[in-house]
Amino acid sequence: MYEGVIQTLIDELGRFPGIGPKSAQRIAFFVVQDAKYDPSTLAGLLATIRETIHYCITCGNLTENEQCSICSDPRRDHSTICVVEEAKDVAAIERTREYDGVYHVLGGVINPMNGVGPEQLNLKTLIKRLGDETVTEVILATNSTVEGEATSSYLSRMIQPIGVTVTRLASGLPVGADLEYADEITLGRAFSGRRNVE
Amino acid sequence: MYEGVIQTLIDELGRFPGIGPKSAQRIAFFVVQDAKYDPSTLAGLLATIRETIHYCITCGNLTENEQCSICSDPRRDHSTICVVEEAKDVAAIERTREYDGVYHVLGGVINPMNGVGPEQLNLKTLIKRLGDETVTEVILATNSTVEGEATSSYLSRMIQPIGVTVTRLASGLPVGADLEYADEITLGRAFSGRRNVE
Repeated sequence: MYEGVIQTLIDELGRFPGIGPKSAQRIAFFVVQDAKYDPSTLAGLLATIRETIHYCITCGNLTENEQCSICSDPRRDHSTICVVEEAKDVAAIERTREYDGVYHVLGGVINPMNGVGPEQLNLKTLIKRLGDETVTEVILATNSTVEGEATSSYLSRMIQPIGVTVTRLASGLPVGADLEYADEITLGRAFSGRRNVE
Repeated sequence: MYEGVIQTLIDELGRFPGIGPKSAQRIAFFVVQDAKYDPSTLAGLLATIRETIHYCITCGNLTENEQCSICSDPRRDHSTICVVEEAKDVAAIERTREYDGVYHVLGGVINPMNGVGPEQLNLKTLIKRLGDETVTEVILATNSTVEGEATSSYLSRMIQPIGVTVTRLASGLPVGADLEYADEITLGRAFSGRRNVE
């Protein structure tokens, strides 16, 4: 529809997740025309990012160094490992400021439909970390989806024989939610996981 | 929230129109991690696009050459000029396949609130083009907004004394629209612009 390179730019932008043809077109015109925008910063970042970013050798989180800033921080509690699916889950948990332990990023979930088995996940280093006797608790923080739950059960069955405490994030009503609109499974979980009022 | 370069990437992506922090984060992780994606193509495009793309010397449309493919096409009807606000409007009209004339891109609309007067628009070359006696009709295709209508009136008052026919795109009900849900101004325009049934 457009001349050569503009269409190529629109097509490339359209490969981003959540960006449809209209958004891609809007961004392309912004890149080409906006007086206050300089595309060279992003160009430089995109050109080098794959060489700059590595997986942390300890936990599998994304980092610019050999080890991520959390694993290399001596003030964190290295006896508790929180297992998450993806690097962005680490950021989500860090935002809560509730957790001062360390992480382990699986890099996915067990999903036989997509051909992902336990061997495709970052599990070898997790087992190695658990071999170290300083670890006392593993918190399973995979998503509350079918695949996340299945992965969580698999890990719990794998870790419990090692003699480490295994916990799972609480499932229940989200804060601010209306009981009336909660789905049955969530409400059921909220009941079964009820706690004493302090 | 993230380590150095990932946060920089998220911030840069967040400068795009319509991309909030969550989308920027999602795209950043896609860029860093997706096995099937190679960010170097987009990096190359962004690094060179501002040098590659120029404004057409005739109409102000975006092009890789001195003159855009429409202005340099001898099969187009060069006696009719369709005046639009932005280069993307040219693409929108081209998609209709209803128009075989040429264009003129204003590069904006008259908007005193934002300090845009007629002198900031691409009007000098339009007047020069109208001086050429081959032009017989100017179609005003600015948006149907307050600023677009004001710009259209301004242009019509400027062009009519030259002795060129000036027309405005029809205003009325969009195809497929329900009369019941049309706003009063649109419905009023549809009435005042009614046509004989052929």
